[in-house]
Parts: sequence; structure tokens; C-alpha cells
Amino acid sequence: MGRALIELLTYENPVLRNFCFWSAIMLMKMILMSIMTGFQRYRTKTFANPEDAGKDNECSVNDKVERVRRAHLNDMENILPLVLISFIYVLSDPIPAVAVNIFRVVTAARIWHTFVYAIIVIPQPARAIGFFIPYIAMFYMAIQSAIVFVN
Amino acid sequence: MGRALIELLTYENPVLRNFCFWSAIMLMKMILMSIMTGFQRYRTKTFANPEDAGKDNECSVNDKVERVRRAHLNDMENILPLVLISFIYVLSDPIPAVAVNIFRVVTAARIWHTFVYAIIVIPQPARAIGFFIPYIAMFYMAIQSAIVFVN
Amino acid sequence: MGRALIELLTYENPVLRNFCFWSAIMLMKMILMSIMTGFQRYRTKTFANPEDAGKDNECSVNDKVERVRRAHLNDMENILPLVLISFIYVLSDPIPAVAVNIFRVVTAARIWHTFVYAIIVIPQPARAIGFFIPYIAMFYMAIQSAIVFVN
Repeated sequence: MGRALIELLTYENPVLRNFCFWSAIMLMKMILMSIMTGFQRYRTKTFANPEDAGKDNECSVNDKVERVRRAHLNDMENILPLVLISFIYVLSDPIPAVAVNIFRVVTAARIWHTFVYAIIVIPQPARAIGFFIPYIAMFYMAIQSAIVFVN
Repeated sequence: MGRALIELLTYENPVLRNFCFWSAIMLMKMILMSIMTGFQRYRTKTFANPEDAGKDNECSVNDKVERVRRAHLNDMENILPLVLISFIYVLSDPIPAVAVNIFRVVTAARIWHTFVYAIIVIPQPARAIGFFIPYIAMFYMAIQSAIVFVN
Repeated sequence: MGRALIELLTYENPVLRNFCFWSAIMLMKMILMSIMTGFQRYRTKTFANPEDAGKDNECSVNDKVERVRRAHLNDMENILPLVLISFIYVLSDPIPAVAVNIFRVVTAARIWHTFVYAIIVIPQPARAIGFFIPYIAMFYMAIQSAIVFVN
């Protein structure tokens, strides 16, 4: 490790800055799925709870709602560990140019994944590409971190 | 940014202290949902796996169990990104009085959300209020952080 | 608190090193569940989306797929808060020998949990043990952190 950890935790470190910026963007994208689910529930009158459905509707299941919910679950399965692994990777003192570009590409891929899954459905491998780029990046960052921090 | 990042990472910084304290409380609340689910499964003899059901019971679905599970899923959709966004927001050097109050209000709102969703069901907009206060706070904190850390 | 927070954030701190190492291992284990789900979907021809099923298959539900998905969801319910609580606990300046062993035992227990849930199903209490060791550790770490960071 070329630098001490304390030198990484500065506003001048582009890796930390980009981690914070792109993680904020990616997490906002993820929580927007709640609004999308609510909108699809309202539009299709598909409710999960009696107190939401009111007297005029019953609880039901709708494919458009379920599709958004699957996209949301996939975000949680991937974006949450991505942010955690990325943070550990920031602490491992990575090569700045590599780290910054990983954060950018991964965020773009996750936005693409949502677009082809829940907004305009595009045949495979469109969604698989959006899934595997961040997925492989997670393993890369986790293995790099494990090597730096082992014993 | 008035202060260097290193000055934020001290035990004297009320923003960091409150982030750690309220996040610990909120995460404990979230994981308590597992116990609530287990309790409802046991009480209603509703099991998800044959090895849990034993010889005398079959796997089934029960509305009380599903309600707790929906509350748990909603916690995961909101509390996990909340803690992550809050941490990035801490690093963005926010105004202490604003940040500390956000952490307090958000934790209270999520506890309220669980109460009206899974313990005593209260008609809307009770749950919607518990949902939207932390939800809007997340966007506020994420946008503030994105502005501080952009390029 | 015997040491300043800044002294914790060094590559020499075994608590931080072990947190980073074991969290990376545990998060990799969690995201491997996506591959396991995909493998089970492919093997049993059980697809969630029409664009994945193609013309020859229909969307369906399969018990082997659902079992892996339940194990994955359980990981998200536990491993994600574990990593977050562990990080706050690292900042609370715990006794190094206690913290390091918690991280080791918790990671081993979660790997065991997946093994007996989704790979070779072993009767209870095999899975319960793998669940409760990390679960109790989470409360211990969260309460310790809350005590250190209160007001």
C-alpha cells in the first residue's frame, strides 16, 4: 500500500469522491422503484393490503406490478452489496483510474438494467448485460479487497 | 467545505455520533422483524420449508405472516439505503443541526411505519406518512451528497 | 474510549482489516446466490419472465428455485445489516480480540446457513444454529455501538 489510509479519506481523493457521488446516484435510482411500484399499483388497481385497497377494490396480483417488484428486488440483491463492496474497495487503496471507471460503468449498467427490465422490455441478452457487468465488477472489487486485507 | 474530511471522523462530531447511534437503533428494529415473522409462523403453524413444518404440518401461506414479511421487505427497501445514504451524507459535511434532526425523525418514522403496518393496523394515511418522511429525507441527503461530491 | 477515532482508521488496526476481509468474503457468498438461482432456473426450466423463458417455455414456479431464493432473501435480511452494524461497531473501538472473532464466527455461520438451507438440506436445528449465531452477534454489536455513541 503506497499511501496511509488516512490519506485516502480526504476530499481530494477522486476514488472517495466518485464512490460517494455514484453510490448516491445508484441508491436514488434504486429507491425510485418504490414510486414506480406504487404508480403501477395505482394504475392497475392492484393492492397488497386491504387498508390500501379500500372498500371498492380487493387485494390482487398484476404482472406489470410484479415486473417492477422483480426489478426492485434485483436492485436490492445487487446495488446494496455493490455500495458496501465499493466502500471496502475504496479503503483498499485501488488505482484511481480503475476504481473511478468501475464506479461509472457499474452505475450506467444498473440504470440500463432497470430500463430494459421494467420500463421498455428488450429481449435478452439486453438485461443479462446490465446484470453481469456490475456482477463481475463486484467480484473483482471484493477479491482485490480481500487480498489487501487478508490477515 | 468548511472543514477537512479528517475533522469529521472524530468522536466529537455530533453528526457522526448520531449517525452511528440512530443507524444502530434502526437496524436493530429491522432485524427484529425476523423474530416477529418466526413468532407469527409458529403461532399460525405456517411454515415455508418442509424441514421446519415437521411431520404434522404442511407448508402454507398465512395473511398475518405475509403482512409481517411485507413490513420486513419494506424495511429492507428503505432502511438499508437510508443507512448507506446517511453515511455518504455524513462525509459530505452537512449542517450538524439539520443532519442530527433528520436522523432522529427518520428513525422515529420507520418505527411508526412498522407499528401501523405489522402490529396494530391503522388506516391510511398512517403508514404512508411513516413511509414518505424517510423517503423524502433519503432524496434530500442523496442530492446534497451528490452536489458536494460531483466531479 | 481509549483511542481517537483517527487511530482506528489505519491499515495496522486488526479490527478494521478483519472487518474488510470478512465482509468481502460474506458479501461474495451472498451474491453467489444469484448464480445458484440462475443455475436452478436453467436446470428446471423455471423462468420468471417471458423474455427469459423464450417460445418453448412458460413462466412457472419450482420448489428448488424457491428454496435458493429463500436462502438468498435470508442472506439479504441478515448479511446486509451485519456488514452495516459491523462497520459502526468498528468505529465504536471494540476490544480487538472480541471483534475479530465475532467477524470470523459470523462469516462461518452464514456459510453454514447457506449450505444446510440450499445445498444439502439438513434437518433442524442445523439451519437455526447458522441463523441465530450471527443474529445474536448483530444485537451485541448494535447495542455496544449504541452505548458508545449515545448522545
